[in-house]
Amino acid sequence: MPVDVVNLARKLSLLQEQWSPRVVAEMNDYQFKIVKLEGEFIWHDHKETDETFVVLKGELAIELRDRTVTLSEGELFVVPKGVEHRPRAAKECHVLLIEPRGVVNTGDAGGPRTAPNDVWI
Amino acid sequence: MPVDVVNLARKLSLLQEQWSPRVVAEMNDYQFKIVKLEGEFIWHDHKETDETFVVLKGELAIELRDRTVTLSEGELFVVPKGVEHRPRAAKECHVLLIEPRGVVNTGDAGGPRTAPNDVWI
Repeated sequence: MPVDVVNLARKLSLLQEQWSPRVVAEMNDYQFKIVKLEGEFIWHDHKETDETFVVLKGELAIELRDRTVTLSEGELFVVPKGVEHRPRAAKECHVLLIEPRGVVNTGDAGGPRTAPNDVWI
Repeated sequence: MPVDVVNLARKLSLLQEQWSPRVVAEMNDYQFKIVKLEGEFIWHDHKETDETFVVLKGELAIELRDRTVTLSEGELFVVPKGVEHRPRAAKECHVLLIEPRGVVNTGDAGGPRTAPNDVWI
């Protein structure tokens, strides 16, 4: 595990692809991942774990089955485990994800939007 | 566990006391805590866990026994478990801490700088 200061903006500047989380740090068995989101993702959940979104730039909507939460820069939201959600962003937004190592972006839903896991940047 | 959007700047505006972490969210058995730091803390470690610092405002130095890392706004650092460290800030800085529930700010070192644990804001 690299033990260095991580500059989130600098890491984001290296990432071109959208919807492709990249690991920037680990804490115990958890990972910090940066991701750029634009457009609408698919409905999915993570049966085994909560998942944390922190918006670093832009605005992110997270649709839940009963409501939609909207996060601006500097806002954080924890999607509880097993709760279906669909991230959506009208314009590209930059997000820090925090979740256990091994969590796949599409959960159990799979499909073409599934990104490679555990890729560092 | 409250499942709501957390605005970190708003939470920080409610916190007056320095060196007194306040919980703003939980993810599984981990907690997100905000804290305002100014001056020098004590040397301590956390035998059982890594600890993550994210600087939200200002600048934070974390002394380690073999070097000092300096974090600016938007930078993240994971102190590995068992590694002695001493946070220090020339001016007040605002930090997001991420660590398992139950971690005490002074580790095993104890003493007068020990803050009450698991206090939400």
